[in-house]
Amino acid sequence: MTRDEQGPADVPGTEAAPPPVIVLVQPQLGQNIGKAARAMLNFGLTEMRLVAPRDGWPNPDAGPAASGADIVLANATVFDSVADAVADCSDVYATTVRKRGVTKPVLTPDAAARTIHAAPGRSAILFGPERSGLDSDDVAAARYIVTVPINPEFGSLNLAQAVILIAYEWSKGESLASPPRVDLDPPAPQAELDGMIAQLEDMLEPAGYYHPPERAVVTRRTLRTLLTKPAWNSNEVRTLRGVFRTLARPRQR
Amino acid sequence: MTRDEQGPADVPGTEAAPPPVIVLVQPQLGQNIGKAARAMLNFGLTEMRLVAPRDGWPNPDAGPAASGADIVLANATVFDSVADAVADCSDVYATTVRKRGVTKPVLTPDAAARTIHAAPGRSAILFGPERSGLDSDDVAAARYIVTVPINPEFGSLNLAQAVILIAYEWSKGESLASPPRVDLDPPAPQAELDGMIAQLEDMLEPAGYYHPPERAVVTRRTLRTLLTKPAWNSNEVRTLRGVFRTLARPRQR
Repeated sequence: MTRDEQGPADVPGTEAAPPPVIVLVQPQLGQNIGKAARAMLNFGLTEMRLVAPRDGWPNPDAGPAASGADIVLANATVFDSVADAVADCSDVYATTVRKRGVTKPVLTPDAAARTIHAAPGRSAILFGPERSGLDSDDVAAARYIVTVPINPEFGSLNLAQAVILIAYEWSKGESLASPPRVDLDPPAPQAELDGMIAQLEDMLEPAGYYHPPERAVVTRRTLRTLLTKPAWNSNEVRTLRGVFRTLARPRQR
Repeated sequence: MTRDEQGPADVPGTEAAPPPVIVLVQPQLGQNIGKAARAMLNFGLTEMRLVAPRDGWPNPDAGPAASGADIVLANATVFDSVADAVADCSDVYATTVRKRGVTKPVLTPDAAARTIHAAPGRSAILFGPERSGLDSDDVAAARYIVTVPINPEFGSLNLAQAVILIAYEWSKGESLASPPRVDLDPPAPQAELDGMIAQLEDMLEPAGYYHPPERAVVTRRTLRTLLTKPAWNSNEVRTLRGVFRTLARPRQR
């Protein structure tokens, strides 16, 4: 998931920031480490750092939970302290459910993602232990707090969910994840639509649809408005004309 | 999570759309239903509908995985078909990992969230079975496709992750003041559209439109896609049914 090196990357001062490092501080379950790896790789993040994982490292429960994101686990590095884990990073973000007494900028995930993309260096995002979250010292070490705006009556984000929301927001700023675009055909030219409507009117007229005559103008307009609304393309207009032709055929029964 | 009834809600045309319904189509594991409920409630969504859950309902595995989001599970309703589950919804979104052959607008989660907030009626978001995703008929029934832009080399979103990303994006629009909306009639509920399409099919069948039989499934889907596109309101659907009724009458000549 290295970034595209073409384009403005060669111009000094305009280089895009490298992808952020995901730092799991004292993670408890190997399974959650695996799920976090999967969440990261889904959105193109590959660098995981572990600070004093409770059950040591490697952890046999991590692999199966990663659902194929083994590369992230294989490259994960272990540190004794948060300070060591973020030593090469210029900006540190602490994720918390609620802000503590610490006075720091509190960012939403999308604001944090923009800040990370605009940063001149590498950023690190800290995630606390499953049960307790980051402790005050770790929050104090960070430059920014990131808080996911969550239902105040039910806040129950697990580690992998917190990771995926941050990774997802970060990926929006990357071009790697552009959505597949459907080649929508342009709407059919008006003449084609007119032909179709005329065909339908020719069928409806003898069937008595425009009765009584004084309502005919309004009825035609209503039908025209309705059939103009969809912006059908030429193919779709052709399909509908086939439908009408079928209905106009002498009954087979 | 009902919307705030104060303020501009009394002014016609400025009411916020109700929260979308999350529809799990043939979900396999109770655990995943529970995790989806937790993901929903984290971001204020409470209405879950289940279409033909594999292991029946209620499912004892769902509760523990919901981590306290029991209210969502308790209120979940079960349907036999997607058509029944979305019958009262005016806009249907199908979540897919990759686009199929169907030609519909493909939205990112944030674009879908904006569209849902701007919709005049209630929206439903379909999520397919864990292993296979939504089948083509379910996608054909939807008005929009929602695709999470994901790492093209590692796309491995599970059900609850897909739900949480959609719910998260939807929740962003909740805190914002919704812009005044033009007072357009909402699209007809899906059930009305289904009735209209069934009426047309009943006319086309004896006329030989679905010949040869091996093309019938594709032909039905094409027609359905085309007729789902316009988002006609109830009045317009009624008008079209009148057109069809007229064409089905014994010829007067």
